Amino acid sequence: MTSITVHFKRVALIGIGLIGSSLARVMRRDNIADHIVINARTQKSLDTATDLGLADSTTLDPAEAVKGADLVVFCTPIGSYEALAKTIVPNLETGCIVSDVGSVKKMVIDILAPLMPDGVHLVPGHPIAGTEHSGPEAGFAELFQDRWCILTPAKDADQTAVDKVTALWTTANMKVEIMDAVHHDHVLAITSHLPHLIAYTIVGTATDLADDLEQEVVKYSASGFRDFTRIAASDPTMWRDIFLNNREAVLDILGRFSEDLTAMQRAIRHGEGDTLVDAFTRTREIRRKIIDAKQD
Amino acid sequence: MTSITVHFKRVALIGIGLIGSSLARVMRRDNIADHIVINARTQKSLDTATDLGLADSTTLDPAEAVKGADLVVFCTPIGSYEALAKTIVPNLETGCIVSDVGSVKKMVIDILAPLMPDGVHLVPGHPIAGTEHSGPEAGFAELFQDRWCILTPAKDADQTAVDKVTALWTTANMKVEIMDAVHHDHVLAITSHLPHLIAYTIVGTATDLADDLEQEVVKYSASGFRDFTRIAASDPTMWRDIFLNNREAVLDILGRFSEDLTAMQRAIRHGEGDTLVDAFTRTREIRRKIIDAKQD
Repeated sequence: MTSITVHFKRVALIGIGLIGSSLARVMRRDNIADHIVINARTQKSLDTATDLGLADSTTLDPAEAVKGADLVVFCTPIGSYEALAKTIVPNLETGCIVSDVGSVKKMVIDILAPLMPDGVHLVPGHPIAGTEHSGPEAGFAELFQDRWCILTPAKDADQTAVDKVTALWTTANMKVEIMDAVHHDHVLAITSHLPHLIAYTIVGTATDLADDLEQEVVKYSASGFRDFTRIAASDPTMWRDIFLNNREAVLDILGRFSEDLTAMQRAIRHGEGDTLVDAFTRTREIRRKIIDAKQD
Repeated sequence: MTSITVHFKRVALIGIGLIGSSLARVMRRDNIADHIVINARTQKSLDTATDLGLADSTTLDPAEAVKGADLVVFCTPIGSYEALAKTIVPNLETGCIVSDVGSVKKMVIDILAPLMPDGVHLVPGHPIAGTEHSGPEAGFAELFQDRWCILTPAKDADQTAVDKVTALWTTANMKVEIMDAVHHDHVLAITSHLPHLIAYTIVGTATDLADDLEQEVVKYSASGFRDFTRIAASDPTMWRDIFLNNREAVLDILGRFSEDLTAMQRAIRHGEGDTLVDAFTRTREIRRKIIDAKQD
């Protein structure tokens, strides 16, 4: 399948939602780990993971999960990282790689880096892939196919560890980029976090309408609204943590958006047609670039 | 194909963009008209329509186009309706049906109804279908398949005329609803007009970013942003006219949206996680309803 080979003795997946279970499927498919141990908050999730054939062993205790692991991957909402990290740190072995799949990187590094023992290698990652569905059953190995994965290791990070995490996601058929964490958070604030916030908001606005109007919104949703509801069905806890942990970049880009929206509002109110045509014409350019970049 | 039969002697299509040319294809496919005459602003559009086999005759003169027609359909941006209507009125035959495909209905009626001669039947319509592409080449007969078409005839409208327009869109495989024009404009303001305005705005906000950041927005657009760019590639003139002609409903729903977005912004700034989770959880309900209604 792929010319890159990467192998781990024992991989501990902390969390087994959409991303964690998709990663487990990739590791199973390509024989990447001798042993996969899965940790989750509920026995139900662990049982599901076992039923799906994703785990060699399971445990409700994250500290137990990481014993003997040469790779630990946080696949939980970012808000859980600090407590989890404090719990597992005493059991991390020298040479172990700690990675994650969170959508915010600077805050994750601020939280995790100071807790890492000497000889443990932190390689934060963000596989940019997802669906509107959550939970271990929602995962599939092809989720990552041809999508980008951004890694944000520190400048002095262990190169072998970075290479191994790169190879892991390459095996999942992702295109891997190394990026500064702060820059990552700015880029994702506009490409992902603001779109999600807006989608959640507009769907909320529609939900507040009178009942009969809401029914018709559902009925005629194909005219634009529907695309927003798909985005706004994503996991609430995950997104709470993203917004709270990328607060400054999100508020910055949200401020710019609000100014621009106010300008549109003003143009509509005052009947300034030329302003609207100008605004609606320049947006076609970026669409063309996305099509040219084969990201459409 | 269909059990409803509808037939016109001579159909005049005023405008031959995405919707007009798709309708022409339906009329060709199902032999709905003995003669299709196409009017457009440019000879280039008329030549394209002829090359595509959509027209029995073409003319740059709208007044000429409607002579002898028993159906006239406005398929141009709404802003052109008034001048066009004034031009064609002297040539409209008694018994002729005048319809349109515009996304706003109250203002269209306010403009067109007073101009209609006695014995000419106005049946405004809105086939809710479209793509990001424009022009006669972009059309296809299946565009309307299983989508909704809303008609907003006056209460005292000629029932035979309403039935004929209903049958026309049913032949195009649309589900037809009769609705009050003001109500239509409110429903579409939330399901279509606000989503488009927001999409245009966020893509504009991204366009204003520094060049290097814009490149990365394109590269990582699949994480949410991309869906907005598709919507924001729609025809600028058409959308200008929609916003200017549905001003009050759009400003009303935009005001609600802005309040809700400000509340989200405040929750993020103040780290109010519970507020965010509540907001992100209730939006899942409307998504479920859309899936239940098979509109996903």
